[in-house]
Amino acid sequence: MDAVPYLSLLSAVAALGLAAFFYTRVKAASPGDERMVAIMTEIQKGARAFLTQEYTWVAGFVVVMAVLIAIVIAPLGAISYVLGAALSAGAGWAGMTVATMANARTTNAAKEGPAKALPLAFRGGAVMGFAVAGLSLLGLSFVYLLFVQWTKVDDAFEIVTAFGLGASSIALFSRVGGGIYTKAADVGADLVGKVEAGIPEDDPRNPATIADNVGDNVGDVAGMGADLFESYTGSIIAPIALTAFTFNLVADDAGIDFNLSLLMFPLAVAFVGMLASIVGAFTVRGGDSTDAGALSRQLHRGTNVAMLITVAGTLAVAAWLFSDGAAFENWWGIGASVIGGLLVGWAIGKVAEVWTSEHYGPVKKIAAQSETGPATTILGGISAGMVSVAASVVLIVAGVLIAYWGGQQTFVDELDGFGGIYGIAVAAIGMLATTGVVVSVDAYGPIADNAGGIAEMAELDPSVREVTDALDSLGNTTAAVAKGFAVGSAALTALALFKSFEVALVDAAGPNSSFPGLSLDVGRVDVFVGLFLGAMLPFLFAALTIDAVGRAANKMIEEVRRQFREIPGLREGAEGVTPDSAKCVAISTQASLREMLLPGTLAVVVPLVLGLLDVDTLGGFLAGALVTGFALAIFMANAGGAWDNAKKYIEAGAHGGKGGDPHKAAVVGDTVGDPFKDTAGPSMNILIKVMTIVSLVFASAFV
Amino acid sequence: MDAVPYLSLLSAVAALGLAAFFYTRVKAASPGDERMVAIMTEIQKGARAFLTQEYTWVAGFVVVMAVLIAIVIAPLGAISYVLGAALSAGAGWAGMTVATMANARTTNAAKEGPAKALPLAFRGGAVMGFAVAGLSLLGLSFVYLLFVQWTKVDDAFEIVTAFGLGASSIALFSRVGGGIYTKAADVGADLVGKVEAGIPEDDPRNPATIADNVGDNVGDVAGMGADLFESYTGSIIAPIALTAFTFNLVADDAGIDFNLSLLMFPLAVAFVGMLASIVGAFTVRGGDSTDAGALSRQLHRGTNVAMLITVAGTLAVAAWLFSDGAAFENWWGIGASVIGGLLVGWAIGKVAEVWTSEHYGPVKKIAAQSETGPATTILGGISAGMVSVAASVVLIVAGVLIAYWGGQQTFVDELDGFGGIYGIAVAAIGMLATTGVVVSVDAYGPIADNAGGIAEMAELDPSVREVTDALDSLGNTTAAVAKGFAVGSAALTALALFKSFEVALVDAAGPNSSFPGLSLDVGRVDVFVGLFLGAMLPFLFAALTIDAVGRAANKMIEEVRRQFREIPGLREGAEGVTPDSAKCVAISTQASLREMLLPGTLAVVVPLVLGLLDVDTLGGFLAGALVTGFALAIFMANAGGAWDNAKKYIEAGAHGGKGGDPHKAAVVGDTVGDPFKDTAGPSMNILIKVMTIVSLVFASAFV
Repeated sequence: MDAVPYLSLLSAVAALGLAAFFYTRVKAASPGDERMVAIMTEIQKGARAFLTQEYTWVAGFVVVMAVLIAIVIAPLGAISYVLGAALSAGAGWAGMTVATMANARTTNAAKEGPAKALPLAFRGGAVMGFAVAGLSLLGLSFVYLLFVQWTKVDDAFEIVTAFGLGASSIALFSRVGGGIYTKAADVGADLVGKVEAGIPEDDPRNPATIADNVGDNVGDVAGMGADLFESYTGSIIAPIALTAFTFNLVADDAGIDFNLSLLMFPLAVAFVGMLASIVGAFTVRGGDSTDAGALSRQLHRGTNVAMLITVAGTLAVAAWLFSDGAAFENWWGIGASVIGGLLVGWAIGKVAEVWTSEHYGPVKKIAAQSETGPATTILGGISAGMVSVAASVVLIVAGVLIAYWGGQQTFVDELDGFGGIYGIAVAAIGMLATTGVVVSVDAYGPIADNAGGIAEMAELDPSVREVTDALDSLGNTTAAVAKGFAVGSAALTALALFKSFEVALVDAAGPNSSFPGLSLDVGRVDVFVGLFLGAMLPFLFAALTIDAVGRAANKMIEEVRRQFREIPGLREGAEGVTPDSAKCVAISTQASLREMLLPGTLAVVVPLVLGLLDVDTLGGFLAGALVTGFALAIFMANAGGAWDNAKKYIEAGAHGGKGGDPHKAAVVGDTVGDPFKDTAGPSMNILIKVMTIVSLVFASAFV
Repeated sequence: MDAVPYLSLLSAVAALGLAAFFYTRVKAASPGDERMVAIMTEIQKGARAFLTQEYTWVAGFVVVMAVLIAIVIAPLGAISYVLGAALSAGAGWAGMTVATMANARTTNAAKEGPAKALPLAFRGGAVMGFAVAGLSLLGLSFVYLLFVQWTKVDDAFEIVTAFGLGASSIALFSRVGGGIYTKAADVGADLVGKVEAGIPEDDPRNPATIADNVGDNVGDVAGMGADLFESYTGSIIAPIALTAFTFNLVADDAGIDFNLSLLMFPLAVAFVGMLASIVGAFTVRGGDSTDAGALSRQLHRGTNVAMLITVAGTLAVAAWLFSDGAAFENWWGIGASVIGGLLVGWAIGKVAEVWTSEHYGPVKKIAAQSETGPATTILGGISAGMVSVAASVVLIVAGVLIAYWGGQQTFVDELDGFGGIYGIAVAAIGMLATTGVVVSVDAYGPIADNAGGIAEMAELDPSVREVTDALDSLGNTTAAVAKGFAVGSAALTALALFKSFEVALVDAAGPNSSFPGLSLDVGRVDVFVGLFLGAMLPFLFAALTIDAVGRAANKMIEEVRRQFREIPGLREGAEGVTPDSAKCVAISTQASLREMLLPGTLAVVVPLVLGLLDVDTLGGFLAGALVTGFALAIFMANAGGAWDNAKKYIEAGAHGGKGGDPHKAAVVGDTVGDPFKDTAGPSMNILIKVMTIVSLVFASAFV
């Protein structure tokens, strides 16, 4: 049974092999003519410059945290932490590199139609997807083997948990920094280009166009990748940590049968999901139609196949690991937890799709509301986003209850309470087991978006743009679906980590301590105060990130205005006159990195300070932040997605089409939605997890 | 000591006398020329028609609830409940009646300058203010005397609590229904009038103008009055209920010294605050300047004087009631709780002022953001509102901690836990003791607003409009301040009611029951699920009310368009052609009453259903709804107020003034903010209290 980590390690290697294979396939495709290559190179340079600087800044933070972990927890914890951070950064870098190669190649392939272009864009995304899942599972399996199975060091499980904190650190800053960058560039480019100068989107005359395309790669690819790396890692660590801290395990105990099943199951499900994702990825094929339904089916075939295999594999694994009648009652219970999680993750993604796709009522309604101007468009999006919160919370509650019930079925009666929470923890893995293929589909979106930008900038035949537009329109929905998985799993993982924190505190205090255990009774004033502060923090965090986008966008706008003013012939598009795009990229990079520091630091410092003051307040705080952060995350992601697609729906011809007053109103909605869906919203699920995992890792310092 | 209810009864009678006196003074003033009288009469008729219908609809709900209370709790509880509802409705009716008389009279007085107009508008508001506080305290003192002191019936305290539920029922529907009406009319009038037909605000040609003015009276006067009636009532009942349920009192026990102090103190503070408000109201005098600072000082003098007297009186009352050394430690502790509450209420109001007044940074920043279009205006308001949430939560947490600490100082060590919660409960009274004068200042706002509308419609000299505009611009800030008090006290009152609910459940179960007491441990799955659902409900409620405004506004817009199309000469302003305003009023009335049913019913039914399913889930639910509802209430109120004043700031000449592009962007912000600040936002604090008090009253049905 303790061969499972080796299996998961092997499946991770296989995933990385697949990523490498897709990389060679993408690289072999032609990037098109000289002009396309020049644009691609400029985007590449910008994205690399941003990530290099971002990682440099974040490295400072990682060093401080590593020192803190080495002193407060264990020196080996610092190594595990740095490894988690480094692998996450590596996955982001790999994804960005291939995405900035795949964009022009997708444009070029689009000349021959969607049958060539869709698989190419998907493969570009799949490098990211399998790099994320592969590097995470590789690192995690290795850390587990090294510290738990091989060296059996003291505090082995705390050290494994630190790997997750490393992943969270990178995710936090990548999501926030990348999110600020991408939207500052997008908003800046749109406001000056479309609104002031009256030139179309992605026009080569606009100095901010390259920065906008860079943003897609550093925000929607690298940032999103780090986010999912963290979610995936966290979901596997949560049940391991829960088991270890609840039963106060040291590495030596990990070999005992009962514990072993609990510790191995998460890695086993990850193994099954990884193999399923690899199979799924091969089923994605292109066709000749640009019909949205057909494209969507082709793209989602991979996810659907992977999910089916995961369901079957999970049941087999559960039957294998939980068959010991002395220790367990019904093996299928824990299988039901995982499958329940998978289904709820899918359903939350479906809610996101229904609320953000132009094929359903909500987006059509917002588009209709744009007939009465921008104010009603905004109100429509806000209320649609809020209703989607209700639907998603009901689903997540259903998921929690199913997973809890499932866990209870598998464990003997004395362990019902633990079993239920364990069920919740593994439900999150169920949601994320197919991360490889889910991220592939998600990262496909920005590649298709970039491909369209390059077609425009390189002034290719409009038919090429038509193909890329068809591919791109899928991207918004796939992004919403992936966000659904990410935020759904965040709620479950955070809940499991939260319970681990509860037991870790008791462990840390030791058997002879007077520490009475964490009180989470919100009827107590200190816990209630924590709950209140926790419910407030996501609002503050959202405000800070939205403001950051505004300030960074303003810097960009000033620069674009300056160039239009000072470079003769630029606005008119005179022959041979090109904008200084690199300057825009540099300005946006500086601004967004500076802006990411305050919200990022807040997320780490606030739980530490509260924990040192009063650990019960921290408990309430984490609970409040979890539920409110989830609600705000869903609200912002879906409202933003809905506005975006309402605009696209109008641009496709509804309500007077492009240029009419309804379209102008829809553009306002889209611009408001940009920082909602790509900066503040997706940062929320990392926020709630980072705060919980910081508390968990530093639990011993609090008692 | 048990003379206190007689004292509070007397002070209530004095307050009603003052309201009657102000009524005669307002009535004695001339309402101006024939045209002004005609407009006033039309507004009056519309407001009466709306309230009559609203109360008819709500009466049905009240009857159902009364029957339920009679069956589940006690037949006398139904009487107390209906009395609470009837008095609240009466206060709303009185306020609306005098407000719709004071509007034209203020316009007429404005011909002679602000020295006449300001006191008149204030007195009009004061009728409302003192009717609210007077009728509430009258009813409450009477119910207390009747059931506790005179007849000593069984379940006397449950019956007193039902009075609060009666007030809450009216408040819920008045705030939601009135809020939908006023904003549907406002948005409808603006969109067709200003945007489509290009005619100015309050133009007599616009068929929706009368409805818009009716809306100010039914939403901002009657709705707000019912809201404050409920808050004030709830804040006094909460510590009484807490005491009674914690010590499991029956009416006979209420005479014992220890209990008596606890039961009398809330009424005594209310008595002190009432006298202070009456004195304060007489210090409001007008001056000849239209300078905003001078007007604001004149208007707020009343509040400031009342607060100072309340502080001194509270200390005296605390020294009197808590001087028994055997039962209590330091009398000043509980005084500190009340004064802490008062200061925090003032500070939350100040936060509202800073974030919504054009004299401070946030509004100026939003105005500056309107330079780059409506999208950045919206984002600026959203982030400003969210930051104000952080400031307000920190204040309320400070208030909770001070009040808790104060309560602990007064009670002996064994009662520290109870003492702290009692301190929180009376802190809410501290915030609301001066309700008489606070509501007077608040109700002044819509009267001044109406006065401006009448000046415009009656085509008076522009100098009159200048005076009314100066008076009106104060109104936005005073409304924000009153909302700060209302929502701050809501958080404290709900917390105290929540604790009462906790003990009421144990009482209801009885000493021989197997009920283990309410668990509020959010680490338990059922409580956590409740917390999650509770955090979600305010989002759903906000979405429903925002959508309701949109739908009702659309009905109005269609009607206005029809009239412009079908009534020849209307748009051109031909001599003798008048719009059919009554039709618009009727349409808006029907639409908003229909729309109020779903959100209103939800607020009552959801806690009942959850309580019957699992009482611990209900506990978590109430906690989640409290903290998230508070955050959303502050967010929406302050974002809305900030947009409104950013628009006014621009109209006063900043950023190009009226008609420029920044102004157009600011109008979009204002329109989005309308349902935020006047419908969804203010409904939140009633929502959280109504759900808590429903749970409290029906506690015995849940165990």
